[in-house]
Amino acid sequence: MLQSKLLGNTQKEWPNEATLKSHGLLIKGGYIKQMAAGIYTLMPLAKKVAFKIENIIREEMNSIGSQEILMPLVATKKLWNMSGRYDAINGELLKFEDRTGTKMVLSMTHEEAVVFMAMTEATSYQKYPFSVYQIQTKFRDEARSRGGLIRVREFTMKDAYSFHTTEESLDQTYQEYYDAYNRIYKRVGIPEVIAVASDTGMMGGSAAHEYMLLCDAGEDKIVVCKDCNYSANMEVAYTDKIDVFTKKEEPLEKIYTPGTKTIDTLQEYIKMPKESLIKAVIYTRIDTSEPVVVFIRADKDINETKLTNYLKTDIIPRKAEESDNITYGFVGPVRFHGDNATVIFDKSLQGEMSLVAGANEEDYHYKGINIKRDVGEVEYIDVSKINETDYCPKCHKKSLTISNGIEVGNIFKLGTKYSKSMGMTYLDENGKSQNPIMGCYGIGVGRLMASVLEARGDENATNWPASIAPFDIHILPIDYAKSDEIKEVADRLYEKLTCMGLDILLDDRNKNPGVKFADADLIGAPIKVIVSKRNLSNNVFEVKVLGDAQAKLISLDEIYDFIQMTRKELIK
Amino acid sequence: MLQSKLLGNTQKEWPNEATLKSHGLLIKGGYIKQMAAGIYTLMPLAKKVAFKIENIIREEMNSIGSQEILMPLVATKKLWNMSGRYDAINGELLKFEDRTGTKMVLSMTHEEAVVFMAMTEATSYQKYPFSVYQIQTKFRDEARSRGGLIRVREFTMKDAYSFHTTEESLDQTYQEYYDAYNRIYKRVGIPEVIAVASDTGMMGGSAAHEYMLLCDAGEDKIVVCKDCNYSANMEVAYTDKIDVFTKKEEPLEKIYTPGTKTIDTLQEYIKMPKESLIKAVIYTRIDTSEPVVVFIRADKDINETKLTNYLKTDIIPRKAEESDNITYGFVGPVRFHGDNATVIFDKSLQGEMSLVAGANEEDYHYKGINIKRDVGEVEYIDVSKINETDYCPKCHKKSLTISNGIEVGNIFKLGTKYSKSMGMTYLDENGKSQNPIMGCYGIGVGRLMASVLEARGDENATNWPASIAPFDIHILPIDYAKSDEIKEVADRLYEKLTCMGLDILLDDRNKNPGVKFADADLIGAPIKVIVSKRNLSNNVFEVKVLGDAQAKLISLDEIYDFIQMTRKELIK
Repeated sequence: MLQSKLLGNTQKEWPNEATLKSHGLLIKGGYIKQMAAGIYTLMPLAKKVAFKIENIIREEMNSIGSQEILMPLVATKKLWNMSGRYDAINGELLKFEDRTGTKMVLSMTHEEAVVFMAMTEATSYQKYPFSVYQIQTKFRDEARSRGGLIRVREFTMKDAYSFHTTEESLDQTYQEYYDAYNRIYKRVGIPEVIAVASDTGMMGGSAAHEYMLLCDAGEDKIVVCKDCNYSANMEVAYTDKIDVFTKKEEPLEKIYTPGTKTIDTLQEYIKMPKESLIKAVIYTRIDTSEPVVVFIRADKDINETKLTNYLKTDIIPRKAEESDNITYGFVGPVRFHGDNATVIFDKSLQGEMSLVAGANEEDYHYKGINIKRDVGEVEYIDVSKINETDYCPKCHKKSLTISNGIEVGNIFKLGTKYSKSMGMTYLDENGKSQNPIMGCYGIGVGRLMASVLEARGDENATNWPASIAPFDIHILPIDYAKSDEIKEVADRLYEKLTCMGLDILLDDRNKNPGVKFADADLIGAPIKVIVSKRNLSNNVFEVKVLGDAQAKLISLDEIYDFIQMTRKELIK
Repeated sequence: MLQSKLLGNTQKEWPNEATLKSHGLLIKGGYIKQMAAGIYTLMPLAKKVAFKIENIIREEMNSIGSQEILMPLVATKKLWNMSGRYDAINGELLKFEDRTGTKMVLSMTHEEAVVFMAMTEATSYQKYPFSVYQIQTKFRDEARSRGGLIRVREFTMKDAYSFHTTEESLDQTYQEYYDAYNRIYKRVGIPEVIAVASDTGMMGGSAAHEYMLLCDAGEDKIVVCKDCNYSANMEVAYTDKIDVFTKKEEPLEKIYTPGTKTIDTLQEYIKMPKESLIKAVIYTRIDTSEPVVVFIRADKDINETKLTNYLKTDIIPRKAEESDNITYGFVGPVRFHGDNATVIFDKSLQGEMSLVAGANEEDYHYKGINIKRDVGEVEYIDVSKINETDYCPKCHKKSLTISNGIEVGNIFKLGTKYSKSMGMTYLDENGKSQNPIMGCYGIGVGRLMASVLEARGDENATNWPASIAPFDIHILPIDYAKSDEIKEVADRLYEKLTCMGLDILLDDRNKNPGVKFADADLIGAPIKVIVSKRNLSNNVFEVKVLGDAQAKLISLDEIYDFIQMTRKELIK
């Protein structure tokens, strides 16, 4: 197409509102336009990239036998009640009423819809296994949308669902999706994406992987072992070996520690390492509003996801309340008092012999605590955050690193959570009614597009891979508007390349070369052909190919062969 | 793919809930599954057809230089306030609040969104004309969704918008869309669709066409001239020549007509033809709640769309009210009294000389009414419904027919309605600020799919054209599950045709031939290859081609050439 007609203005300066590279590039290049918080229009360039990404996803889904369907965005409360999630999810699930007063939701995921659809269609074991997918609009009412297309409210997602009669069948299909996802990331230009073990969260189920692009822009913390291939989301990362620091037993002693309400003030007052102190962190359970007191070694932090999963309820930090009989600031496990409190001991305390903790009395602590001796037998639960000084749970070396990651996809083994709660059954070979086992598999199209930019872009250039670049070739004629010769050569090139089935952008604008080249870097066609008087006098074009440091001079005769060969290389 | 895995059960019986052919076929063939009122899931077969329709639409849009974008479904009240439509549209426009209490809508159309997007991108005349389109989810909260995919609440629509600096430019682009739409209907198998002049309704603007498939299932009434090419939606159809029945002047006379509150009772009482009577129809204006009295010749009916457009307010039928001083049942134009009433004379009364109408007094009528003499000079307004006895406004013959039609697309000249109300401007060649002129162009994908079935289907068969059929070839082996020979031949055929790039469905189910053939008619692949023992012993396949009355016997060697040739014919 002619660039003068292309909708979506580029801008010279980095946009103030953009803290992420992808967000800035998408605005700077005229790819997106914000309509409301977390709600964007994809302009022609972004739609072209999204369309190519969607087709790559579609091909990979079809290749593993997943059947494309289209489920509605709007669903009834009645449907979401079948799984219990209408009441369970608040905030992010947008709820409203239609004109008749029927309560509805905007679907943020489609487990309910797909089970409702499949429950009448797959009533015999002979239909299993099968899987379906859709590429469809979702709405998630994020409290803090951010970063352009990285975290939005309305988005296009590929979500797939598989149904099985045995765990082995689920495992096999799970592996097929696992591999298909890796192919997708490779094809869109970010083969470095890794699959990490992840939390099953609100989806339920027995196992899950997230596909992570490790980069500074990521909101997730990913634990990766430098020595073995262990990797996990911080939310679920664990270690099974913890150093014990204090092995000598001492007698229990109450000490006067005035004004030491925090670990830092306490540490300064008693001059002991953090490893010897017990930190008490207090939450409120959302289900009962009662307190939860977690004791943890003071050099560690609490992983709230692990804690939430253990408690099976959401939690929020608790502020001091007179009514709960807790001595805030001086809470410790010895002679602890707290009305209706759930008490949890983190694994980091297991085996430690001589610890300091609050005495549950204003301005006093105990030292020399031996939990077994002074509190009794307790269960130690893993609710702490991994850090880089911990042992890898797989190779048991101190070789963990923690990086930021963007989640660019996820796959879940759901088990029978939805088929059971919604009453979906099939008849097995013996005529017995069974609940199918399910898996689900998601990729957000817009976030994937932005992630490619986080991985490959720089401040001035998108560097799209050839597979998803908005145009195949960008023709950049210098003085197109002023020179008949340039115009004629460029137009002929445009026509011939178009006839070859390529998608060409011709910069027909009356702009100086600097502006044209800057815009071309933002558009990011993998092959740029510069048509200039100086080169024409030598019968050559200047050609810049994605990834090449130097431009090449290609003769007018050879340009078509060169482009065909180069494209083969680029798409390979 | 293997039919045993295809999701979506066929059913033998016609579904009770379906009154429309398309609705019944889509359910019977396992194409759709209802999730809520007017909300459906497209099962794999329907998604395949929709995908092909979308790609045909996409190709035709790209071919006229329209740029694909993607605008969000969710929009803010603030945006819709810019055009004034947030308050103007009630019921169908679904309004809700997000988690922060911000008022939002589910977009049923995207004029506001596209103007908001374009207003920053097209600020100079040099960018014009341009047009954009999207294929996207819409939600319209229909009070009475019906007929499967014909009238739903959530649907996929292609909507396009063009922007211009001159009326001539709009006319030219409008014509390009007009032609592209005709190509789309031809390519999806319903070339008989006609473009009719239509009402601009809530879209505003100066001109509009609807594309109509004439068929019994249609909800619209379409007026078509048998002799010339005049056609129009009943809502806007007019005639400029009306027969005058009573030309003789008579004196005005008050007559006693006890209990004749309706035209029928009056006619029976005074034994005169309907053409000699004046009917009074009374509405309430929605804007002021005041009465509107329309006088019309009693053989005619009122076209409420024309009346609404003339009044520039919605109206509802008015029930007798004491407060408005109208003598309900005996209303007439002579000595009419009615507080704050808007009085309208329909064109059908123009020139009539000796009429009967209510005397605005219980149980009395006037006869011999000459409006000019007895009421004075009045303006005659065309607010009547065309009927088949009227003259064609174009060729002036009595050759009109009225048919039902399904609206399968529409195109509107919007003018500056949205650019003005929303404050979108560009600088013209003289540096002067101007509002661009707009057009908009819509096609609903699901309704188009259903319309193809209304036109081409019968009770047992979809008869999809080859261009949008869910599969290219259907292989139907008899005794596939029982005979190794059949299985081997059918599998080889399947593999070879798949390698040819065709989309093949192989019926691998252990079902009897009757069931297989019935399902095959519902799936509607344009070429069906039946593999049976009897034919194999003669080294032939039986091949059924869409549109052929007789099946053909094709030798095993020639089948590939035959299929390639036949497909060329079918797609042509």
